[in-house]
Amino acid sequence: MPTVETVSLDGSRLRVDWADGHRSTFHAVWLRDNCPCPECRHPSGQRLLDTRDIPDDVGVASARAENGAVETVFADGHAARWDADWLRDHCYCGGEAPAAATRRLWGAEIQAELPVGRYEDVAAGGPALRAWLATVDELGFAILEAGPTEPGTVTRVAELFGFVRETNYGRLFDVRSVVNPSNLAYTGLGLGAHTDNPYREPTPTLQLLHCLSSSAGGGENTLVDAFKVAVDLRAADTDAFELLAGQPLRFRYRDDETELEAETPVLSLDARGELQAVHFNTRSAAPFRLPEELVEPYYAAYRRFGRLLESPEYRIRFKLDPGDLFIVDNLRVLHGRTAYSKAGERHLQGCYADRDGLRSRLAVLSR
Amino acid sequence: MPTVETVSLDGSRLRVDWADGHRSTFHAVWLRDNCPCPECRHPSGQRLLDTRDIPDDVGVASARAENGAVETVFADGHAARWDADWLRDHCYCGGEAPAAATRRLWGAEIQAELPVGRYEDVAAGGPALRAWLATVDELGFAILEAGPTEPGTVTRVAELFGFVRETNYGRLFDVRSVVNPSNLAYTGLGLGAHTDNPYREPTPTLQLLHCLSSSAGGGENTLVDAFKVAVDLRAADTDAFELLAGQPLRFRYRDDETELEAETPVLSLDARGELQAVHFNTRSAAPFRLPEELVEPYYAAYRRFGRLLESPEYRIRFKLDPGDLFIVDNLRVLHGRTAYSKAGERHLQGCYADRDGLRSRLAVLSR
Repeated sequence: MPTVETVSLDGSRLRVDWADGHRSTFHAVWLRDNCPCPECRHPSGQRLLDTRDIPDDVGVASARAENGAVETVFADGHAARWDADWLRDHCYCGGEAPAAATRRLWGAEIQAELPVGRYEDVAAGGPALRAWLATVDELGFAILEAGPTEPGTVTRVAELFGFVRETNYGRLFDVRSVVNPSNLAYTGLGLGAHTDNPYREPTPTLQLLHCLSSSAGGGENTLVDAFKVAVDLRAADTDAFELLAGQPLRFRYRDDETELEAETPVLSLDARGELQAVHFNTRSAAPFRLPEELVEPYYAAYRRFGRLLESPEYRIRFKLDPGDLFIVDNLRVLHGRTAYSKAGERHLQGCYADRDGLRSRLAVLSR
Repeated sequence: MPTVETVSLDGSRLRVDWADGHRSTFHAVWLRDNCPCPECRHPSGQRLLDTRDIPDDVGVASARAENGAVETVFADGHAARWDADWLRDHCYCGGEAPAAATRRLWGAEIQAELPVGRYEDVAAGGPALRAWLATVDELGFAILEAGPTEPGTVTRVAELFGFVRETNYGRLFDVRSVVNPSNLAYTGLGLGAHTDNPYREPTPTLQLLHCLSSSAGGGENTLVDAFKVAVDLRAADTDAFELLAGQPLRFRYRDDETELEAETPVLSLDARGELQAVHFNTRSAAPFRLPEELVEPYYAAYRRFGRLLESPEYRIRFKLDPGDLFIVDNLRVLHGRTAYSKAGERHLQGCYADRDGLRSRLAVLSR
């Protein structure tokens, strides 16, 4: 880390000139808000000082560099000592969105190097679990091979890193053909690429599917990185991208005991205008309610995006053997399946979980 | 419901003139996408037809009104019969956001009519539970009085309508003073109005707090409708509102086993530009990383909003007796507490849950 060359005051700002030529500016109110002294910051790392209580006329009266630190005295006499590395780390110049920093977009080329962990290694925790979770964070999916075929395995895998999100489908749900299905997932029909539960608020951010048996013909799993597709669409057809980001859709699910409805656009953008989430599910989308003049352009954009999601350029395919499992980031990577026959069996178990648990476990394992 | 007067075709659009003078337009692609026939729509209500598969040149070849229905034949020969009431319901002219439709904003005037249910009635289910859940949907909070003081009651109340969101704090967590707290909630300190867990993705959308004992002096609960405050701020100072909506902050939590970080603006807007969520927590906000020229205006906006959240004009106060509980919509209603003394006891249990379960149960009870 570069060292502090000089510090100076410019009105209500502290200027720090670094030995490598970089210059940082920190405002008095920002410094007061982040004062690291034990009166202002609890040992837990939480801020004791309430930002609302900082006087409006806060100023820095003096500042000096000393022994790899910067010492400041505020206008009201409160003093603070700043670690130089901390100041450099918090220079205003940084700041890519944390999720975007580790993300790697992919298309069909990744078929040649599918990210696969071995159940036995990953379930043991430690570096193999860390590597598997890092893959999910980076690619939005990963496969786990050669696990047990015991029912309930899927929630035990979720508990390796986080917490199961229980829903009206239970802590886990069985995916196989049934008579009178309440959901097309419980038929032998092929399913186009989709995200799960867009009608739920908040939508589960992770989904796991574990294979108990798969002797039926067909039933291959398909995955597509919808962020990659959306980024390419934005470059090729900005208007289509903006229609998909600007018009909310409603999604619905209803059975005897449940009635869910949520509103979200297909592409959600964050406050930076960057892609934050994709929700795409033609089964549960309610009839679109759009301004009349947008109906045709919107359908054109929606169908263009939807067809790209099924295109061989972007899509990967694999078949789970009994004991195998995959996990997807349900706001980024869409999953689908090819139809499967009634001869033989296909039985999967699924559950939902959330990204916060996964990222936390990954961060702790990386310490 | 008004009846159909005439139907006509205008290129690729169906026009419906209604007996009350209203006119609806439906595009061929929209009609094909929403075809209600058993080939296109599963008995579960899910769409069997994949929107991606509709031919680009879809058109309506003929249409006629008959016996309270409209019959159309598409250019490719596919025929559909539309219930007139359904068509009127889905006229493009409708469409307020579903959550906004039932929301009622409030300030301190609501102190005179706090929404309180009796535990015994609400726990019995039926109309009392329905009314209590409708209040949460409308006001973003409700109180439940005179329940048991048994540990674990809080999760049983959540299970009356939905599912507990388990986190690193457990299925439930104890809120009381402890030695070496990992979180300021576990001290006797007063806490300014805040939302919980902004460092979690997704942030839990509901929080419940249940009182087991409260003999300590102080420790009153405070609540504020941050949507009301934000709407007033938008009217009074649009620039401040837009800074709070446009600049993402990071929030962090860290202990020996957990490391959480998420990025979100204080005010999240939906695709319509309407307020969707508030995240405000001065304890867990990481040092702001803003463009240099925005630091002072941002702090001014943030502190103005934060101080309004503590203003007597907006804030309500109440003290939970043992057995009482409150629930808040954690993306809308902020909660806080006054400091409490070390003499006597104050012991609360809390848990998180999500809005989808609450709205589902409310919808089913309202059938």
